[in-house]
Amino acid sequence: MRKPTLAVVGATGAVGTVMLDILSTRHDVWGEIRLVASARSAGKKLAVRGEEVEVLALAPEVFDGVDVAMFDVPDEISAEWAPVAAARGAVVVDNSGAFRMDEDVPLVVPEVNAHDVANRPRGIIANPNCTTLSMIVAVGALHRRYGLRELVVASYQAASGAGQAGIDTLYAQTQKVAAAGETVGQRSGDLRKSVGDLGPFPAPLAMNVVPWAGSLKDDGWSSEELKVRNESRKILGLPELRVSATCVRVPVVTTHSLAVHAAFGSEVDAAEARELLREAPGVLVIDDPAAGEFPTPNDAVGTDPTWVGRIRRSVDDAYALDLFVCGDNLRKGAALNTAQIAEVVAAEFS
Amino acid sequence: MRKPTLAVVGATGAVGTVMLDILSTRHDVWGEIRLVASARSAGKKLAVRGEEVEVLALAPEVFDGVDVAMFDVPDEISAEWAPVAAARGAVVVDNSGAFRMDEDVPLVVPEVNAHDVANRPRGIIANPNCTTLSMIVAVGALHRRYGLRELVVASYQAASGAGQAGIDTLYAQTQKVAAAGETVGQRSGDLRKSVGDLGPFPAPLAMNVVPWAGSLKDDGWSSEELKVRNESRKILGLPELRVSATCVRVPVVTTHSLAVHAAFGSEVDAAEARELLREAPGVLVIDDPAAGEFPTPNDAVGTDPTWVGRIRRSVDDAYALDLFVCGDNLRKGAALNTAQIAEVVAAEFS
Repeated sequence: MRKPTLAVVGATGAVGTVMLDILSTRHDVWGEIRLVASARSAGKKLAVRGEEVEVLALAPEVFDGVDVAMFDVPDEISAEWAPVAAARGAVVVDNSGAFRMDEDVPLVVPEVNAHDVANRPRGIIANPNCTTLSMIVAVGALHRRYGLRELVVASYQAASGAGQAGIDTLYAQTQKVAAAGETVGQRSGDLRKSVGDLGPFPAPLAMNVVPWAGSLKDDGWSSEELKVRNESRKILGLPELRVSATCVRVPVVTTHSLAVHAAFGSEVDAAEARELLREAPGVLVIDDPAAGEFPTPNDAVGTDPTWVGRIRRSVDDAYALDLFVCGDNLRKGAALNTAQIAEVVAAEFS
Repeated sequence: MRKPTLAVVGATGAVGTVMLDILSTRHDVWGEIRLVASARSAGKKLAVRGEEVEVLALAPEVFDGVDVAMFDVPDEISAEWAPVAAARGAVVVDNSGAFRMDEDVPLVVPEVNAHDVANRPRGIIANPNCTTLSMIVAVGALHRRYGLRELVVASYQAASGAGQAGIDTLYAQTQKVAAAGETVGQRSGDLRKSVGDLGPFPAPLAMNVVPWAGSLKDDGWSSEELKVRNESRKILGLPELRVSATCVRVPVVTTHSLAVHAAFGSEVDAAEARELLREAPGVLVIDDPAAGEFPTPNDAVGTDPTWVGRIRRSVDDAYALDLFVCGDNLRKGAALNTAQIAEVVAAEFS
């Protein structure tokens, strides 16, 4: 029994930064922690667990002696380097989209399907997309009781889902609309003249909503919408699940929200659903509209759980629930879930 | 054959102001136009059709000789005064919620059910809620072809749905978050400290979304969500239609958007749906994601049609369509639809 060695690849990025914070505050299961990034960042020192650690340049030999390697890097870097780390004996937990739909790579949310961690023929475990992660813990808990048949979801996705450039763009645009005075946003297209640089978004985001995230796939669907469908099916082990998602960017810095309509195989009860969500790990129920209590992204940001509220049985369908969920897309939606998966693997060493 | 006399009750309010603009720009079917408001505003002069018209104080006799009276006032004022106007011989077109579900009052969207105007035993015709109106023209066109069975909608509702106080609050909060610097919105609850007055909203709206609009009804539903359900059923003449709505306020000044999942009785085709929406009166199709073209509220604001995009057949259901719609909640969502109903009545005089 020994404490396993961890490598964090992409330690200097947006998710990597949150990861170092998470590693410094969660119950510590790790022996050595190596920080890895591009050659450009090598030699930098970053704080983790209260110590300064020097960043190493990504190379095959950094994985020698590593038990678990977390990858918080773009798809193409993961596609190239995760197999290298696995070949050197590390179990890779990858936060990119490179392996999520690979049949030989489990896609894991520990509260839902921790058991899938054991089935990893390639030595790689994938972390889901942030939008799927922002709702799946709550949906998984309801599925266990009622048997999920169909999901219809609409998202309210934060700017940070598009990385640091998304965050910077929203702040810059907000400055500009604030300076533009109290008529801006009231004439067709006037925000295009006011907000300046669109950054990573295809339309102004400040004082607007943009029904697009990701790239164009078949039949008008966005990559983000198909990820929600395909990843939900894989995580829940429901290959026939019907899923319709509409993904919309909103002017929120961090934390994705979703309006979820979930239809089940058995009759539902809102009070019972509320109770089982209260008892579900990783879920925080905030649901008392009479007292003005429901989740908003600004309540959930910076916290670990999936916040759930507005839980009600569909007026016209005793087999369906409607709810509103919020989850920090940089924590549970990325770094936290990766850390949780890595901890499940670490337990194999004890 | 004569030009009918019109009274505009609530001429000085937010919707009334848009109404005077609409009356000044649409094909003019009216003889005299009387402007009516509370005693406090009586004597003011407002411009309509290029002329200054003095505002009259609301009193029974202002309706003498009036053929059509539009009411853009709060529910309780409509409840009291619409029957007074009707008793004096005016056909009332009421934009409040006071009569919408009254069995003896038709609820009309001219592109969908203009024929219902003729059936008005109380002499009152109701204008739907702005959220229902922002989608129903598009949904009605699809229903005529495919036979609607179920709607699941999530809204992205503008601040102006809460009146001028909503607009003022969003601008004031935006100023404050812009001044708060580039970390605001990233710690749980920090907007509550930054945005100042919440105005008519139950949580900060700038850089946030708020899953609540209206008042609390049975089983956790909001009044706004039940309006979308009940009014859609009445307008479409589908008393058994299944409707689940989640209504969410977003930091947009004006124009409501909705993600719509519509299930039908017959198989759908996205290209055909796009074509029939292109031909539908009152609908503008903007749907070419490859070219970055989809509706956003800032495109639709200040315009008359319902903007529709992201039209796609559900991946797992050949009987369902997913789409995204935007409609100006002060124009089609209020003043414009009222004016259109009044014009249908005016045609009875020709």
